Amino acid sequence: MNFVEHVIDSKKIYDGAIINVEKQTVRLPNGQEAFREIVHHSGAVGVLALTHDNKIILEKQWRAPIGKTTIEIPAGKVDSRDNNFHHAVIRELNEEIRYVPQTVKRLCGFYSSVGFSDEYMQLYLAEDLEPVKDELPRDKGEFLEILKKSLDEAIEMIENGEIEDAKTIMAIQHWQLMQK
Amino acid sequence: MNFVEHVIDSKKIYDGAIINVEKQTVRLPNGQEAFREIVHHSGAVGVLALTHDNKIILEKQWRAPIGKTTIEIPAGKVDSRDNNFHHAVIRELNEEIRYVPQTVKRLCGFYSSVGFSDEYMQLYLAEDLEPVKDELPRDKGEFLEILKKSLDEAIEMIENGEIEDAKTIMAIQHWQLMQK
Repeated sequence: MNFVEHVIDSKKIYDGAIINVEKQTVRLPNGQEAFREIVHHSGAVGVLALTHDNKIILEKQWRAPIGKTTIEIPAGKVDSRDNNFHHAVIRELNEEIRYVPQTVKRLCGFYSSVGFSDEYMQLYLAEDLEPVKDELPRDKGEFLEILKKSLDEAIEMIENGEIEDAKTIMAIQHWQLMQK
Repeated sequence: MNFVEHVIDSKKIYDGAIINVEKQTVRLPNGQEAFREIVHHSGAVGVLALTHDNKIILEKQWRAPIGKTTIEIPAGKVDSRDNNFHHAVIRELNEEIRYVPQTVKRLCGFYSSVGFSDEYMQLYLAEDLEPVKDELPRDKGEFLEILKKSLDEAIEMIENGEIEDAKTIMAIQHWQLMQK
C-alpha cells in the first residue's frame, strides 16, 4: 500500500521559543488534498533515575498547559549545550535533582504525540547516583520539589491518578518489568 | 512550596482544526514574568485491542509531523459524536479495525507531552473482539494497514525501533505486565 503524502504547500504559523507551528497542504495517496497541522519541537530526554536504596526520583512542578502541578521523572529538551542525548541526561540530572549517575543506559525512544507533533524523546535508566560537586544553574522559572518513591508507591500513584504523565508511567512500567 | 503561576496575559496564536495555540504571560512564584507556549488539543483514546488468539492489533499509517509511516495501536480524538471516552473507543475500533469488543476496561490516563500541550489520553483494553456488522466511514485521508502481532513480536518491534510511538509502547508494556 502507498501511504506517502506529498507536501504541496507549507505555511509557518508560529515561530516560538519551545515550539514552531506549521500548516501543510498535502496530496493524499488517492490524489485528494488535505491540511496537516504540525507542532515542531526539539528532541528530549526522560530519565528513570534510581537511588541506591531502589527508589525512583520524581519531580513535582507546575505545568502551564494544564494549570496544575504534575509528578514526573526528570526530563528536558536536548539543546545547543548538549553534544548528544547522553550529555543531556547528565546535565538535566545535575540541574534538576543534583545527582550524577555512574551508570546510564538507553531504554527506548518514542514520539510523544505523533498525530500533531514531531517531539521525539529518548528514555534512559540512570543508576549509581552520587551527589554532584558543581551544581549547574536551573532554568529561570523552574520550581521543583523532589520526591523519592518505592516501586509499590509509584504504581499506587499511577492507579490513584497522582501520576498522569506519559513518560513517567512508561518509566515506572519499565522499572516494574525489570523486576521479573 | 508555592508552585502556582498566575496568567497575566494570553494571546491566541492559532485556531486550527486539530490544535489551538496560545501564548501566555505568567507571573512566577518568585514574582518574575515568563512566557508559556501552549498547544490545546481535545482528549483522545488509545486501545490495546487483543484478538481471541492473543494478538495485538496495530495500524501502519502515514504521519505528517515526521514524514514517514508509524506502527501504532488504534487511537483517535474524542469528538462531538462521542458521549464519553467509552463511546470513542467503540467508534474508533469500528472505523479503524472493523471490530467491536465485548469487553472494554480502562487502564490509565495520561498527558502525552505536558510540557507544551494539554492533550489527555485514556488507554483502554478491548477484548473479545467480533467483526462489526455496520461499518462506519473512515475519516477522509485515513489510509491504514492492519497488523496482528504476538507479544514477543511486539516487544521485538520496540527493541528494533519499528515501534516508536509512546502510547503504543505503553500499551505493549501493560500487556507484558498482564502476563505476570
